[in-house]
Amino acid sequence: MQVIKEVSSLKEQRSSWTHPVGLVPTMGFLHEGHLSLVRRARAENATVVVTIFVNPTQFGPTEDLALYPRDMDRDLALLEHEGVHAVFAPPASEMYPEGYSTWVDMDGVTSLLEGALRPGHFRGVATVCNKLFNIAAPERAYFGQKDAQQVAVIKTMVQDLNMNLDIVVAPIVREPDGLAMSSRNAYLSPTERVAATVLCRALIAARSLRMGGCSDAGAIRTRMSDIVKEEPLATLEYATVVSPVSFKDLGSVEGSALAVIAVRIGSTRLIDNMLLD
Amino acid sequence: MQVIKEVSSLKEQRSSWTHPVGLVPTMGFLHEGHLSLVRRARAENATVVVTIFVNPTQFGPTEDLALYPRDMDRDLALLEHEGVHAVFAPPASEMYPEGYSTWVDMDGVTSLLEGALRPGHFRGVATVCNKLFNIAAPERAYFGQKDAQQVAVIKTMVQDLNMNLDIVVAPIVREPDGLAMSSRNAYLSPTERVAATVLCRALIAARSLRMGGCSDAGAIRTRMSDIVKEEPLATLEYATVVSPVSFKDLGSVEGSALAVIAVRIGSTRLIDNMLLD
Repeated sequence: MQVIKEVSSLKEQRSSWTHPVGLVPTMGFLHEGHLSLVRRARAENATVVVTIFVNPTQFGPTEDLALYPRDMDRDLALLEHEGVHAVFAPPASEMYPEGYSTWVDMDGVTSLLEGALRPGHFRGVATVCNKLFNIAAPERAYFGQKDAQQVAVIKTMVQDLNMNLDIVVAPIVREPDGLAMSSRNAYLSPTERVAATVLCRALIAARSLRMGGCSDAGAIRTRMSDIVKEEPLATLEYATVVSPVSFKDLGSVEGSALAVIAVRIGSTRLIDNMLLD
Repeated sequence: MQVIKEVSSLKEQRSSWTHPVGLVPTMGFLHEGHLSLVRRARAENATVVVTIFVNPTQFGPTEDLALYPRDMDRDLALLEHEGVHAVFAPPASEMYPEGYSTWVDMDGVTSLLEGALRPGHFRGVATVCNKLFNIAAPERAYFGQKDAQQVAVIKTMVQDLNMNLDIVVAPIVREPDGLAMSSRNAYLSPTERVAATVLCRALIAARSLRMGGCSDAGAIRTRMSDIVKEEPLATLEYATVVSPVSFKDLGSVEGSALAVIAVRIGSTRLIDNMLLD
């Protein structure tokens, strides 16, 4: 497994890769969610490239960039074990050299929910993914459904800019008690870790309501919100029912609908989502 | 010569092209400036693709989108004669389908001069070029030095987003009396056509001053401005001396410097530029 730190080296190396190439972009501190993406990429491609890059431009000034958990040695061992061909782990100065000035952004989906609460977040996500797609030139890139709005942003970018790859989305991987896997779960104290199941519990309740025939998005929102309120360590940021494409709030649930939730457990911000059909 | 109108058709066709591929993006109504780019692309590549697309997103609401000169039959005949392999001439709905929402923009160079006077112009330019580069996947794309700031924007985008092509810039082609070739010259009445040489005359005066040893950018600006003022049909928008990379105004001229000018002749807006070294 090659570990590459420079854009130019990766561009040189890639001419020797067997196609198709599958790319798994990550911020490292890998968990089973990431590894499920890597395994799927391995099954569907001749060459698998994983990127490990904690992208500074998708963090706000008051967010957890400096604290974001990192363990490169462990990550590399895990990826070697999965049979990954190359890891691209550039320093920030390689991705954003002095004078860097170009941004990919979009109207609509980037201004709602995560976009509204984390101004500039999706601009950073779209820009870094655009760069990584150009650098690795894969046939496919793999993302987790956990970051559902990120998936919508990236799919929109690829379609709008006519980029030459397919975006493959894999299901959320959960802990046995339902908590969605996330590198940020490492921030949780043991008590907070128990409280963090509230996101999944609220989503399951939303799904049960819908399965029981409820099509009133307002009632589903209230149910989720009530469940979060019962958890003393939790502070609700949002819990709502949206279109899985536009991320606009739905009034009544008829076709495809996604329940999305963001909660602070102590100082740790967690998100989760579940399809309601 | 194939004439292609759909993104998907072009992406299918391109797998049969011999590499390297040279792309010449144009808005049509071709003149000798465009043809010089096509000839250079022919000399340097196995396959040449020309795009003809009057990109609506780079025109402001009060600009000349509807009036912009078009003559597809003449353009296609000229390109056939030059031995071009394929022409991509999509309708606007193919490039910007309903719900289109992604934009490429940048800090710095896009907010100065043309960017300041034409808000959103360079966002439209960067976005459409990004799309065309992804659609045609050329090894090289060819642009004229006439639109010097556009060249700086596109080079910055390609470098920042790690795109996989080289940008080749060809010199300005001028009429015998010095007027830079431009599709917008077609708007000029015979009297205006004579007055339009004022841009080139001001630039030549700037260059003479500099060649004579003047390093005071302010003095060079004043000289250009004075020349434009002497022309009754001309209204100066700007005439200044900038860095050819950042397009920031220079105080004193030492290394590389570019004189840039924008003038209205009647209702027609023209731009031109000249290197001062």
